[in-house]
Amino acid sequence: MKDINVDALFLGPKSENQKFLKEMIEFMLDEHIFWRRDFHPEDKDAITLKEQRESGFQNTLEKTREVLLELSSKLKRSSEPWFSPRYLGQMNSDVLMPAVIAYMATILYNPNNCAYEGAPATTSLEIEVGKQLSKMMGYDPEKAWGHITSGGHVANFEGTWFMRNLKSAPNAIKQVKPELVKGLDDWQLMNLSTTKILDLLDETKKLGIFDEVRNHSVRGTGMTSGKLGKLLVPQTKHYSWTKVVDIMGIGSENFVNVQVTDKCRMDINHLKEEIDKLVEQKIPILGVVSVVGTTEEGAVDEVHEVVKLRKEYEKKGISFYYHIDAAYGGYARSIFLDKNDDFISYENIKPMLHESGAMQMDNDWPSRDIYEAYKAMSEADSITTDPHKMGYVPYQAGAIMAKDTRVKDLVSYFAAYVFAQGMTNENPVLLGSYIMEGSKAGATVAAVWASHKVLPLNISGYGRLIGRSQEVAQRFYKALSNEPEFTLENGKTYKAFTLTKPDFNMVNWTFNEVGNTSLKKMNDLTLKLFDKFQYVGGPVYSEDFLTSHTEFTLADYGKAPVHFLNKIGIDEKEFLNGTGVWIFRASLLTPFLNLEKDWDNYWATFMKTVKKTILEVD
Amino acid sequence: MKDINVDALFLGPKSENQKFLKEMIEFMLDEHIFWRRDFHPEDKDAITLKEQRESGFQNTLEKTREVLLELSSKLKRSSEPWFSPRYLGQMNSDVLMPAVIAYMATILYNPNNCAYEGAPATTSLEIEVGKQLSKMMGYDPEKAWGHITSGGHVANFEGTWFMRNLKSAPNAIKQVKPELVKGLDDWQLMNLSTTKILDLLDETKKLGIFDEVRNHSVRGTGMTSGKLGKLLVPQTKHYSWTKVVDIMGIGSENFVNVQVTDKCRMDINHLKEEIDKLVEQKIPILGVVSVVGTTEEGAVDEVHEVVKLRKEYEKKGISFYYHIDAAYGGYARSIFLDKNDDFISYENIKPMLHESGAMQMDNDWPSRDIYEAYKAMSEADSITTDPHKMGYVPYQAGAIMAKDTRVKDLVSYFAAYVFAQGMTNENPVLLGSYIMEGSKAGATVAAVWASHKVLPLNISGYGRLIGRSQEVAQRFYKALSNEPEFTLENGKTYKAFTLTKPDFNMVNWTFNEVGNTSLKKMNDLTLKLFDKFQYVGGPVYSEDFLTSHTEFTLADYGKAPVHFLNKIGIDEKEFLNGTGVWIFRASLLTPFLNLEKDWDNYWATFMKTVKKTILEVD
Repeated sequence: MKDINVDALFLGPKSENQKFLKEMIEFMLDEHIFWRRDFHPEDKDAITLKEQRESGFQNTLEKTREVLLELSSKLKRSSEPWFSPRYLGQMNSDVLMPAVIAYMATILYNPNNCAYEGAPATTSLEIEVGKQLSKMMGYDPEKAWGHITSGGHVANFEGTWFMRNLKSAPNAIKQVKPELVKGLDDWQLMNLSTTKILDLLDETKKLGIFDEVRNHSVRGTGMTSGKLGKLLVPQTKHYSWTKVVDIMGIGSENFVNVQVTDKCRMDINHLKEEIDKLVEQKIPILGVVSVVGTTEEGAVDEVHEVVKLRKEYEKKGISFYYHIDAAYGGYARSIFLDKNDDFISYENIKPMLHESGAMQMDNDWPSRDIYEAYKAMSEADSITTDPHKMGYVPYQAGAIMAKDTRVKDLVSYFAAYVFAQGMTNENPVLLGSYIMEGSKAGATVAAVWASHKVLPLNISGYGRLIGRSQEVAQRFYKALSNEPEFTLENGKTYKAFTLTKPDFNMVNWTFNEVGNTSLKKMNDLTLKLFDKFQYVGGPVYSEDFLTSHTEFTLADYGKAPVHFLNKIGIDEKEFLNGTGVWIFRASLLTPFLNLEKDWDNYWATFMKTVKKTILEVD
Repeated sequence: MKDINVDALFLGPKSENQKFLKEMIEFMLDEHIFWRRDFHPEDKDAITLKEQRESGFQNTLEKTREVLLELSSKLKRSSEPWFSPRYLGQMNSDVLMPAVIAYMATILYNPNNCAYEGAPATTSLEIEVGKQLSKMMGYDPEKAWGHITSGGHVANFEGTWFMRNLKSAPNAIKQVKPELVKGLDDWQLMNLSTTKILDLLDETKKLGIFDEVRNHSVRGTGMTSGKLGKLLVPQTKHYSWTKVVDIMGIGSENFVNVQVTDKCRMDINHLKEEIDKLVEQKIPILGVVSVVGTTEEGAVDEVHEVVKLRKEYEKKGISFYYHIDAAYGGYARSIFLDKNDDFISYENIKPMLHESGAMQMDNDWPSRDIYEAYKAMSEADSITTDPHKMGYVPYQAGAIMAKDTRVKDLVSYFAAYVFAQGMTNENPVLLGSYIMEGSKAGATVAAVWASHKVLPLNISGYGRLIGRSQEVAQRFYKALSNEPEFTLENGKTYKAFTLTKPDFNMVNWTFNEVGNTSLKKMNDLTLKLFDKFQYVGGPVYSEDFLTSHTEFTLADYGKAPVHFLNKIGIDEKEFLNGTGVWIFRASLLTPFLNLEKDWDNYWATFMKTVKKTILEVD
């Protein structure tokens, strides 16, 4: 288990693994180059040596070279140094070499995973990856459905597509074959569980009326605003959700924003209240969305509580679709799986994290509620997760998994020209007919597949990599929290304040002048400091550290930030009157900050830079 | 103008340009490797040489190598040989080296074009590419809006998103500020032109009520089935459109299928009839979609006729949004632009195609109606085009362009955490708030940008490349059409029949035994032959030629194929009773079949293989 060395998986902050990277890329290039030459060797060269010597030919190569050098200049001048532990901003870090090389190599073959015909090799890799990810989520891979999307947005669209079309199915059945739902009134039809609806649809398949039912569902009739009920999403919802309800024809009016706690997790009591209010008004619940790893705080919603709640409501005849947006946090479920992919008991999780080398310090992560949240994910109807976030593969790769593969029949279409006759027996490989997108890069899939193959989705693989980043985050959080007040040459004394103990590998914090009670004044300091720690233009390499920031407003967060302001000693009035709280935000994905020897030096440099910069701006 | 040699832009069927490819990739790799080392050179190596020697480290590298070799085996065993002129199937061919190298190099930097902060270099490249593509479509690049999507599906979604939210805006204005639309009844509100609606929305911006209006539009209220009217799409519609109306909440019931002519183009007379029918019933027209380059026949809809029709209807107070799905055919508008990007006159187009070297034979392409269709594209409200089709870049890259950039305000959202304060002055670079997707690969954009830079989007660049492929298609079509009847050793005589003279670079055809009048018998021959010309499994290199096929059914095509059947001498009854027509389908994107010297040999090999295979199966 200790045989995987995470450091050998990345090019490294100083290109330490450059020889391996170059050697493998050259090898994969040659593989492709000579593969081409082996197809009908008897065919003559299409481009003769003589032609290659001609001036037009040479000019074209020169032009290409010039353009590529221009591109390289642009990239080098202003790309963010995500490979460096000095980058403390968005969900970015160095990416896995297996992914990078697989991606590059596959581009040469340029498969299109829309249909088997366009990607005989990578289509089956996508099916394999879908099963792996489903298994990681605790789904039965043989009964689940998963595939790669072009990102988390599309995955959330697709999850909502399942949800919406499913919710409209019982009524469609009633219209086509009322006997099948005899005895169920309209309210009951809007409150069937996912499994019950899918079982009913199986009946319609047997009767040969499935297509007719689909045509009577929302995909045939179009949406009728509000008829399918409300979508309950935590207040901290990712901005993709505003797009989802717009595009899917649901409308933002049919959002119910569930308040968050001071840990920025969905407040279960408030969720219950909102559900009760809706039930009282006989308004159906289209679905509930939890977030595992909020994009601004890394908060992990208490999935297990939602699962419990749904079970309770189901006893009262109320049910709803449950989707988890784990774009950010999903891959971390690998931490909780032993090398046989079984979910580790809570008693064993910390010892096993140590034993596997995933976490080296004496950590109090994960807490019981985070553990239970991850465990309960297997009960959700669908889950979004992004390989291009905690999967450490290059952009752009999202993924959607559904617990019950039958949901895909509600969204499937068939295109004669892409799907050859006779191929219909191999349904799962006709991706374009089951997904929101069409043409899609097989190269992305190859990158994800190669990463999963090198790093299994359990504690022996990804768990070790992601465990490292959790440890870095906990360490960063503790260092900031424990950093004593410091007085600078300007005569002022400052202190760092952390928002919450991180649920995931993201840390939020501010600095405040000791004694200051003005939110505006603290915000000013944050924004002036951020100005020095962000990249806007010019040579990126003039930066010492890079980070990101975000704003917590009353409109988006309710009173959740008040607890934080109280801790700092900031008067909450300004916030309640509409001034947002600006805060630093660091996703700590870097695998290169875990060792004791590095840390002290790193932290000293960081705080020295912070102090120098505060002096410059304040 | 002749200085660009298209042959120098591809790796080539025999990897002829391998030295250049390898040299440039190695150079770009080194650029990146040493760039990393230049960021804070004072930071120590994160991975020591000692660590690199350790067994865990070496084992991990070995594991990575093993996985990559396995990937390479899979790719080599069963990838389609798109680089070869023997591939005559889907819209695939060799892709541009500048694109491949730019793609690979940019993956190393891994920019995310969701926000400027994630991609300082490639965000501006995307804006540049958007303007280039807008210009190619005849839009004013300063007034238009264009960006890269993850494919043609998403581009069609986005065009429909503009359409749908725009259509609902006048009623939203009426609810918020009735004075602004005083004197307009409901029917008139549903028939305002795109420009008129956008002008009205400008008024609401001035009054500070734009946000309120947006909330009253469909994005706030959700869809109400049918209220926004019907979407008119040609019967040959790409299967993405069935997904579009489902996902957008429009519903397939609100599709109006416009019949196609025997050239598989949208029948303008039928379009007019359908519009008249709707107007009579006071049902609004949500939008009209044309296809430029249908995916099954390469047919080019008569865009100019739709534009003319809309102008006529506007005089009668009827208007509608007009979207063109030019995923396949869009890039070919470059053929019609001179090196100053001005649209070439019809008199000059053929001489200039010859002069530029884009077409070498005495061709009768483009016909007047194709010319006029391309010219009129600039009048459409939005256009989809795919760089990963006729842009010859690797998967996956689509693009959407809108004539009037103001439409994006109807679909925009803002996410505090991705879009830093102060950056709002640079609106266009906050891509994630204006588009359907979020995180997106800057590498894709770099590939498109590099290609456009080497090959300008006019007759001096892409025009030459795409001109070549048009010429190949015309030649293939003529060769098949002129191929005399042939009698084989089985005593039977056969003849090839082409569907129509290609509008674009796609050719459809069948073989039939002379005297046979049975559709079923002809289909049997086609399917048996196809079985030998398709790749299903096993070593791909055992194939001589590869092609694709499709089925024309009465349900999808109406009586359009009857003309073709009559030409062959097949009794049309079977077709009218529900038997589809199976037909071979070849997208001729290959740049490597244009020279006289190659052609005769190629054609002889092709026909020899056809005859041999017919003998095997019939």
